[in-house]
Amino acid sequence: MKAAVYTGSQLEIEDVPEPTPKEGEVLIKVASTGICHSDLHLLSGELVGPIPKGFIIGHEISGWVEEFGKNVKNPYGLHEGDPVLVSWIVPCGVCKYCANGKENYCKENANRLVGIIGVDGGHAEYMTVPEIAVIPLARNLDPYYSSPIACAYGTAYNALKSVNATSGKSVVIIGSGGVGSAAIQLANAMGLNPIIAVDIDENKLKKARDLGATHAVNANENDARSKILEILQDGADIVYETKPYPDLKLSLEVVKAGGSIVVTGLGGFATMAQIPITLFVSKGISIVGSLGYRPRIDLPELVSLASSGKIDIRKLVSHVYPPEKINEAYENLKKGVHIRAIVKWN
Amino acid sequence: MKAAVYTGSQLEIEDVPEPTPKEGEVLIKVASTGICHSDLHLLSGELVGPIPKGFIIGHEISGWVEEFGKNVKNPYGLHEGDPVLVSWIVPCGVCKYCANGKENYCKENANRLVGIIGVDGGHAEYMTVPEIAVIPLARNLDPYYSSPIACAYGTAYNALKSVNATSGKSVVIIGSGGVGSAAIQLANAMGLNPIIAVDIDENKLKKARDLGATHAVNANENDARSKILEILQDGADIVYETKPYPDLKLSLEVVKAGGSIVVTGLGGFATMAQIPITLFVSKGISIVGSLGYRPRIDLPELVSLASSGKIDIRKLVSHVYPPEKINEAYENLKKGVHIRAIVKWN
Amino acid sequence: MKAAVYTGSQLEIEDVPEPTPKEGEVLIKVASTGICHSDLHLLSGELVGPIPKGFIIGHEISGWVEEFGKNVKNPYGLHEGDPVLVSWIVPCGVCKYCANGKENYCKENANRLVGIIGVDGGHAEYMTVPEIAVIPLARNLDPYYSSPIACAYGTAYNALKSVNATSGKSVVIIGSGGVGSAAIQLANAMGLNPIIAVDIDENKLKKARDLGATHAVNANENDARSKILEILQDGADIVYETKPYPDLKLSLEVVKAGGSIVVTGLGGFATMAQIPITLFVSKGISIVGSLGYRPRIDLPELVSLASSGKIDIRKLVSHVYPPEKINEAYENLKKGVHIRAIVKWN
Amino acid sequence: MKAAVYTGSQLEIEDVPEPTPKEGEVLIKVASTGICHSDLHLLSGELVGPIPKGFIIGHEISGWVEEFGKNVKNPYGLHEGDPVLVSWIVPCGVCKYCANGKENYCKENANRLVGIIGVDGGHAEYMTVPEIAVIPLARNLDPYYSSPIACAYGTAYNALKSVNATSGKSVVIIGSGGVGSAAIQLANAMGLNPIIAVDIDENKLKKARDLGATHAVNANENDARSKILEILQDGADIVYETKPYPDLKLSLEVVKAGGSIVVTGLGGFATMAQIPITLFVSKGISIVGSLGYRPRIDLPELVSLASSGKIDIRKLVSHVYPPEKINEAYENLKKGVHIRAIVKWN
Repeated sequence: MKAAVYTGSQLEIEDVPEPTPKEGEVLIKVASTGICHSDLHLLSGELVGPIPKGFIIGHEISGWVEEFGKNVKNPYGLHEGDPVLVSWIVPCGVCKYCANGKENYCKENANRLVGIIGVDGGHAEYMTVPEIAVIPLARNLDPYYSSPIACAYGTAYNALKSVNATSGKSVVIIGSGGVGSAAIQLANAMGLNPIIAVDIDENKLKKARDLGATHAVNANENDARSKILEILQDGADIVYETKPYPDLKLSLEVVKAGGSIVVTGLGGFATMAQIPITLFVSKGISIVGSLGYRPRIDLPELVSLASSGKIDIRKLVSHVYPPEKINEAYENLKKGVHIRAIVKWN
Repeated sequence: MKAAVYTGSQLEIEDVPEPTPKEGEVLIKVASTGICHSDLHLLSGELVGPIPKGFIIGHEISGWVEEFGKNVKNPYGLHEGDPVLVSWIVPCGVCKYCANGKENYCKENANRLVGIIGVDGGHAEYMTVPEIAVIPLARNLDPYYSSPIACAYGTAYNALKSVNATSGKSVVIIGSGGVGSAAIQLANAMGLNPIIAVDIDENKLKKARDLGATHAVNANENDARSKILEILQDGADIVYETKPYPDLKLSLEVVKAGGSIVVTGLGGFATMAQIPITLFVSKGISIVGSLGYRPRIDLPELVSLASSGKIDIRKLVSHVYPPEKINEAYENLKKGVHIRAIVKWN
Repeated sequence: MKAAVYTGSQLEIEDVPEPTPKEGEVLIKVASTGICHSDLHLLSGELVGPIPKGFIIGHEISGWVEEFGKNVKNPYGLHEGDPVLVSWIVPCGVCKYCANGKENYCKENANRLVGIIGVDGGHAEYMTVPEIAVIPLARNLDPYYSSPIACAYGTAYNALKSVNATSGKSVVIIGSGGVGSAAIQLANAMGLNPIIAVDIDENKLKKARDLGATHAVNANENDARSKILEILQDGADIVYETKPYPDLKLSLEVVKAGGSIVVTGLGGFATMAQIPITLFVSKGISIVGSLGYRPRIDLPELVSLASSGKIDIRKLVSHVYPPEKINEAYENLKKGVHIRAIVKWN
Repeated sequence: MKAAVYTGSQLEIEDVPEPTPKEGEVLIKVASTGICHSDLHLLSGELVGPIPKGFIIGHEISGWVEEFGKNVKNPYGLHEGDPVLVSWIVPCGVCKYCANGKENYCKENANRLVGIIGVDGGHAEYMTVPEIAVIPLARNLDPYYSSPIACAYGTAYNALKSVNATSGKSVVIIGSGGVGSAAIQLANAMGLNPIIAVDIDENKLKKARDLGATHAVNANENDARSKILEILQDGADIVYETKPYPDLKLSLEVVKAGGSIVVTGLGGFATMAQIPITLFVSKGISIVGSLGYRPRIDLPELVSLASSGKIDIRKLVSHVYPPEKINEAYENLKKGVHIRAIVKWN
């Protein structure tokens, strides 16, 4: 099969053997994979150290069930050929974290993050994963355009839910890249209002309005803090920092008393945010870190939101590449060209 | 001023003195009032006993601030002329219920429900209420079409929130009258899916689809239970019984294990639902009663949902009457003619 | 090994082959098993139909790890010889229920309830179970006296948590048998107050006071409703119906507006509770069914509560039988002799 | 009446006129007031700027109802002579914060914190407050020893509840002063385990064990981090930083993935905590600021916990002073002599 193999410095499209599903695993025929910002941290060695040669990255994945390994439990009653998502988080399914709505913090994850560490990813025609990472897609969704559910939307959704983002609350979303844009669509689908997008790129802000932001604030051209507090005198119920290197400064200025700030960016181990303790205590603020998503909880709900048209993935996907242009795709990502790009396989 | 006064048998439009706001009260110039099913129970003496002659009913109210009484605290910074909603629930603001998100169960309410008992209602050009019952409307909403927020939407919203209705969950809504129709719009705005409407009236089911129901099931013409379980094999996360005399039979059949049923209908003290205990326990079902809404929590959130266009009140309002036709409005309500009707004052 | 085998009419102590752990299973050396009321329903065929001859019942189990099958994940790092609990609920670990704090409603359970259906239970010297059902005990707990955690306490704890039983809330516990008595200790450990025990047996009420009930009300000798409302003018935040055939009558009379009733009894499929809808809605009551417990969430927390001395299992265990007297134990259970009885194996 | 009046540099016991309750207020005969660390920040001008001459401080207050002003609503049915607590937080009772369980963030508070700003405090024989700040005490509690409920316990309780401190969870409490010691008792009463106290003073650690800490770690003499992770391999579910100048360093090291850190200290506006963002996100940590308490929610629950003996205030109160020695009391506070000291009035 065709795959984008890591050669020690970059990715190369090679012909490699198709994998075989082991006990409890599923063989997936890949439809598409997302070109995600975290891959840049991964390729630079910053995220989990140097990548072994021959490893296949790609962690935002949709496809079809090709074959079941032995002894799968198959709680969803899937059949071969059914469209599915693949989660890059593969929890053990046994421990207390896995039982309690916190499977994204299962310790097993540290050893097997699909396309990141321990398990080959989806930049290939086929791949295998433990069945716990396989989530059914709805029939009315195009598998080729569904991969962003499995990272950009998943990350944004779990973040919003971590701070009880429910109808009638206000939200400020800082950063309008892939995750921020997904967050805007989701906040809209979940009944939040107003939805204030903040970025420094006018094109992204224009797109943000198109995706459902009620207001867009350019953090470069004007005083973002004042602009936001004009719209929300008391501040926002929720601030979502999607930036890769968040300092929380603006967030702390515009969050309401009793409100929450949620953070998902993984900006290298050196990034330190400064929390002014007295302000933080006297306003009763919560600052919440959120890693990835809970595959078995968040992904089915996102499939439902997409299936009902409440989020429109095609609006998020700005670029589609063939496998051969995968290195170009990552170059364009660095340049800030995409909202979200995907690669089509099969 | 003009008012619809209860004369001992029906309502009559009379000229009565304009009320004066006492300390802590606000004088409201009424824009519109809703024609609500509960008024029929009220007028028949079933709800709170015989109505005193001269009492003014009407509990779903929007209007404008006309004048402030002494010592109002005015936490929203309202000015005279500002558009507002009036809540029919008037909590004391001091007790533990009022502090803890349960103001709809404040004991003070029993003695003063606007337009129901103790406090004259909104079927008039002017009225006074304690300031705690006054909630600001958004500038972009038409006050004449906003009164349904203060009862139909409020009741449906608090019910849905009582059972943690959040994005990605499935819901069955039994009954597509005023409250059921509001619930459909709200479920849609909050990201629920699918939204299955059940009624016995084809016109109402057609309207339900128009308001955002993804499926409509006629409980007369087919086996509602099977139809619903075809759509949702495991059953629904949430079932909302909006019928005035709910028996919970269908609800118990179509709710998921671990799911919830919520009930808001007040069908005379004789209605008894039968709960098969073993089924109920072995499926881990919750049955939740919900009364009205929390004015200070639910109404501002609903104003936000309406202001952002996530719910469209004009789609709910099927009929508009002048004050002189108020008795005709109640007659038509009995005949099942309306989704929601309002009376315009001023 | 020695085991209490079902012979078609009763239990007989026989010598049967020791089981061998399959892949993902653990072989348990049994310390003790509880004599639980549900076994009477089970033996009468009422619970899950006729029991196959040769089946071993016993679902409240503590013991030691004897041997691991292949490919166990062992998230707790257990070693052979370590003391453990065995859960009678054995969730699949893959599905959405299992991910989301609702593993007691996992569909897989219907086919494999340890000692009830599909999987031999603990009335034996040895047994095997999937590892997901094995939970570590604390070193300072006596394994012989720990089995009640795995049913009586588990059931009571999950019930109390289902209705958010937290510190400072009031609770009425109806029925002071094994589960009710465990609930009294737990309510005390969780900071609830007052804790009002209701029963018709003066000995059980005396014991209830000894276990931590602040008040004890005899439902036979006086007007239980009035007695309770003398103590709690507004009614109770929580009412826990532990009776096997609950009618909810008293519960509905003494619960507070906005309060909750929780039910765990499985009293044959014919028991119907009557809910007066208007009262139920106007007081905003929740009625919650709760089945068993979540092994991976509730059992470790209970081990912690027992280990710290906050619950005292020895106070609950009123009788200890040798295997040979197991039929006598069930006879005494029927007579209402026990609070909780256990059988010691090994 | 006798009062400790601020003279511009210190407190002096003077004879001043007894205050008269205005509309909606209650006249309180003071039983005792606490000597709280925040008073030192207040007296130094650090907390809310310079104190006006003649102002009476003292914000941890218990006493008796002496007289009701006009138009009190009196939801608890209090009578003259009834024992009560006085909250230093006096919410408006009208706004959304006040309706929604967040009255400690009501904006009105900024202008009237009893004994801190705007409203004379309790270091006097009599005082007046709006009725919303008056909470009934249980009959079996000694009013003289109840004042710590109204600050030390209230602060600790709201903090623990802000991070969902419920039974079976583990907690590390950093700092064993008045608030930390109250937190230890409360964690014990709420069913948490283990409860690890951290301080640098051996006497306080000894006291911590006496109050219910299961472990005590001296942060000076050994590696606190290692000691805690020996007890809790995965880290703690909850870390409570009670230090006045918290840096969160140790907290971030010992909190579990998915766990929470709560902070209540107000250490001058200059204190900045450093948050290593990648660690914080990848472990899914929440950092929660918590200000004071919710008088109408937390204080009645604390009264219930004290009344049932689950917390023992006499164990917290280490010193009792007469009014004449109030300056000495503050001197001793600075020296770290007290766990909690009170002054008896009347």
